[in-house]
Amino acid sequence: MSGERLIYMPLGGAGEIGMNAYVYGYGAPDRERLIVVDLGVTFGDMDGTPGIDLILPDLAWLEARRDRIEGILITHAHEDHVGALGLLWDRLRAPIYARKFTSAIARLKLDERGGVPESAMTVVEPWPELLTLGPFKVGFVPISHSIPESAGLVIDSPQGRIVHSGDFKIDQSPVVGEPFDPVMWQEIGRSGVRALVCDSTNVFSPHPGRSEATLVENIEALLREAKGMVVATTFASNVARLQTLANAAEAAGRSICLLGRAMRRMVDTAIETGLLSQFPNVVSPDDAAQIPRENLLLLVTGSQGERRAAAAQLAQQGYMGLALKEGDTFLFSARTIPGNERPVARIMNQLSQKGVDVLDDAGGRYHVSGHANRPDLEAFHDLIKPQFLIPMHGEHRHLREHLKLGEAKGLKGIIATNGMMIDLSGNAPKVAEYVEAGRTYLDGSVLIGGLDGVIRDRMRMAQNGHVTVTVIVDEDDEPLGDPWCEIMGLPAKGRSNAELVGILEAELSQFIGRAERRTIKDDEKLEKEMIRIVRQTSQAEIGKKPEVTVVVSRLA
Amino acid sequence: MSGERLIYMPLGGAGEIGMNAYVYGYGAPDRERLIVVDLGVTFGDMDGTPGIDLILPDLAWLEARRDRIEGILITHAHEDHVGALGLLWDRLRAPIYARKFTSAIARLKLDERGGVPESAMTVVEPWPELLTLGPFKVGFVPISHSIPESAGLVIDSPQGRIVHSGDFKIDQSPVVGEPFDPVMWQEIGRSGVRALVCDSTNVFSPHPGRSEATLVENIEALLREAKGMVVATTFASNVARLQTLANAAEAAGRSICLLGRAMRRMVDTAIETGLLSQFPNVVSPDDAAQIPRENLLLLVTGSQGERRAAAAQLAQQGYMGLALKEGDTFLFSARTIPGNERPVARIMNQLSQKGVDVLDDAGGRYHVSGHANRPDLEAFHDLIKPQFLIPMHGEHRHLREHLKLGEAKGLKGIIATNGMMIDLSGNAPKVAEYVEAGRTYLDGSVLIGGLDGVIRDRMRMAQNGHVTVTVIVDEDDEPLGDPWCEIMGLPAKGRSNAELVGILEAELSQFIGRAERRTIKDDEKLEKEMIRIVRQTSQAEIGKKPEVTVVVSRLA
Repeated sequence: MSGERLIYMPLGGAGEIGMNAYVYGYGAPDRERLIVVDLGVTFGDMDGTPGIDLILPDLAWLEARRDRIEGILITHAHEDHVGALGLLWDRLRAPIYARKFTSAIARLKLDERGGVPESAMTVVEPWPELLTLGPFKVGFVPISHSIPESAGLVIDSPQGRIVHSGDFKIDQSPVVGEPFDPVMWQEIGRSGVRALVCDSTNVFSPHPGRSEATLVENIEALLREAKGMVVATTFASNVARLQTLANAAEAAGRSICLLGRAMRRMVDTAIETGLLSQFPNVVSPDDAAQIPRENLLLLVTGSQGERRAAAAQLAQQGYMGLALKEGDTFLFSARTIPGNERPVARIMNQLSQKGVDVLDDAGGRYHVSGHANRPDLEAFHDLIKPQFLIPMHGEHRHLREHLKLGEAKGLKGIIATNGMMIDLSGNAPKVAEYVEAGRTYLDGSVLIGGLDGVIRDRMRMAQNGHVTVTVIVDEDDEPLGDPWCEIMGLPAKGRSNAELVGILEAELSQFIGRAERRTIKDDEKLEKEMIRIVRQTSQAEIGKKPEVTVVVSRLA
Repeated sequence: MSGERLIYMPLGGAGEIGMNAYVYGYGAPDRERLIVVDLGVTFGDMDGTPGIDLILPDLAWLEARRDRIEGILITHAHEDHVGALGLLWDRLRAPIYARKFTSAIARLKLDERGGVPESAMTVVEPWPELLTLGPFKVGFVPISHSIPESAGLVIDSPQGRIVHSGDFKIDQSPVVGEPFDPVMWQEIGRSGVRALVCDSTNVFSPHPGRSEATLVENIEALLREAKGMVVATTFASNVARLQTLANAAEAAGRSICLLGRAMRRMVDTAIETGLLSQFPNVVSPDDAAQIPRENLLLLVTGSQGERRAAAAQLAQQGYMGLALKEGDTFLFSARTIPGNERPVARIMNQLSQKGVDVLDDAGGRYHVSGHANRPDLEAFHDLIKPQFLIPMHGEHRHLREHLKLGEAKGLKGIIATNGMMIDLSGNAPKVAEYVEAGRTYLDGSVLIGGLDGVIRDRMRMAQNGHVTVTVIVDEDDEPLGDPWCEIMGLPAKGRSNAELVGILEAELSQFIGRAERRTIKDDEKLEKEMIRIVRQTSQAEIGKKPEVTVVVSRLA
């Protein structure tokens, strides 16, 4: 056995928040049997990935070793943990394991994006049930988070136990789902844990996290006291929050209407899987339009300012026959994810223009986080008492801070970012290998590599505009007529107040008129020169150098 | 006199935070004499204005009335109040008035961007000095903010006094510059104020603002206790913060090195204008490189994550021979302006990778805001006791909240956003007119209108990529050879795993081969059909519809 090793390697989610994908392995080097934990996505943005629909981990390394994969384990049904499964499963073709609600939600999402055969998916029972996967025995341990049935994983190997926390918070009254159970986690730690691989999201939040249940009173008061219609938006997957909002609406005599497909789907699934046994009846948008507005609560999608979601539409023209007006109240019962500040503010300002009162998570009255804060992380370390601490689910600064937090209490650890294979077999975790771990983009219906250059070209066109240049060359390598320009995304006129296109064409004509035959004969040379002229002339005229496409048509 | 009126109109800064530009007028309708308060910029971003260097207010309305402008008053030297002066002054050609330091900084900025003749600029003495501008008498009243010599304006007209707060906070120990003087402001209010036009930035901040002086102790402790080099970044214009940091460095035996042009320039100007009489000597980057790192403080530009600034470069390869390493400390002594979260986080993560400890404004130990918080706004209202409250310097939600704050204390008011001309002559403020108030973009060296379509095209190319199609048609309206495609910002291969360009060309050839002569003769029709084919084929092949430029070359 001395030649075998226990490895951990993030392929996504370590050094960033999003697109989680973690690999564990056990066996002789390069022959380890592998398990994959989570396959999530990140969302693109105009800033860095214009036109990109989703960002996924690059699974080339795993794909080349897919015969060694024992299974794919999904800890919970958030997009950043399950969203890539439909698009990438076909590359791995390994069986998928998840708890009941997670499986049900995953299945709905999978069907939209690629899909996975029914037979590939196995619903697992929670800890203390164990699943045998090659050299591993794995238990799905209930842990509280902002979605029901979240699981931490106990991964037992011949070289000891790993606890993979999954996303979690310490919440002993989570409203829906299983409370955090310190006794159970202590028990899991008691038999010795080699490594705790642990959520780092909120390591910079200094105060102990608050329970979901602390919101009940505030939300009840809000729904009781609001004069007009109340609209609340949160992540549809935050089923506990939906329950709290629905309970408060019932208590205030308000009917509930769900807007947005994800919202209806999530509630249906939670009811079907037995998680929401007490959810009140809901009314359709048509019926809601007939109910006095002070007797209504709308639960809507779009808490992050997504342009097409119900929240954004209600802030503008309305949605499914429902519209907001002065005296109504709009509650953001969610945190704005960093990067979404502007679209969320846009909605808030639109609502303000309608005279709608907006409440958000400022002050913490209407939202609590789903992740463990700094003191909660320390408490969890103390329950598990691992030999090693490996921070995950964080940007580099989160991982580093989390490691420092552990080291202050005497825990050994390492910062492992995407592509770093960590050998956990020895007396301290150490880097065994660096693996290529990039990003894959879903662009329309195509998966492209993050470094393919497609995005670079788009960003350049967005910054600099585009010029098309065409020129026809006859059989004798003589230019036929003058070069022709078209611009896109550029000002019509520049410094000299003449048309930019005219100025460019004049410069190009002059060049072509003087060019030597051997330049005109040489496609590459001709193109290069014409690009240079366009960029140089544009720089002088409008102060920027556009992207240029040159088409030389040669009459045969 | 009954035919005359007193008007207020924001052309920028009301309904947004940025590009401040406010107009006051007095006289017969449409013959009012005008004064302009501030001419600022907003910064563009990839999200909404790719490639745009600066965003400025559209001054078309003012330009058409420039013979009626008595003067342009600058309250303080922040970019969002003075940054557009150099680019737009030529359209107004009115005299500019500002206090000494503001003039000095404005002058430096103007020279970069257009410039203004020396003679156009007058340095004014502060209140109780008064400047006569047509029907107005104007006083520049010292008020505390995050830049020295900030001024609120007292604007006296035949129909009463207006107080224009400018950007302000209530700080009675601002470290550099004049403390907030409640007695003076009360005195100004005592003779009766018709309208208070008031900063709304921090209306959602519930606690009283803290003084600049509260940071001294924390910053001193930080510089004393840090083990390695300390780098601090803040807005260069926050001269008081620079003084606090410099004092703490001196006390800790650290030499100070200024990095970034704006930083050096600001300190020089503040010394020259007598504001910084006690600033310690600084060392050059070359000398700094010879000093033990534990004896150094670098004061650097780039607190908002600007890519080319000193902070961003130090987080990567280093800057002017100085580089960071494990054990150093990096202090963001500034707030991250909403929208800049990602670039700032990028720098923090790069520093984390180097093992540098990062401190930011979380917890408020190392930064205080320059704007009045909610209770401070109430205190200011109480000092001025205006008849009307007109919130400015805020997004719509800030203006609305500020108005509600005033109404709760019995103040009449109105939400005036850009382009709303408000008549202040009657018993309540009312809208007199709606004026076109758009945005102007600085794109490279050209000013373009915000609605010119240039940005729309760039964003479409960024989202959808670009295809160039060329086809040659001979003298007999017969296609000469096949159509030719080039792509930019699009994946090389799509669904069918064949080259996208090849597929597009095949479809276009097929179309051209079958097209009727009258289609081929008609440029518009031919272009429209070819665009349709490219977009439709791309949608099927790659799931997106690109932007298309078609060039039809006709042999004459």
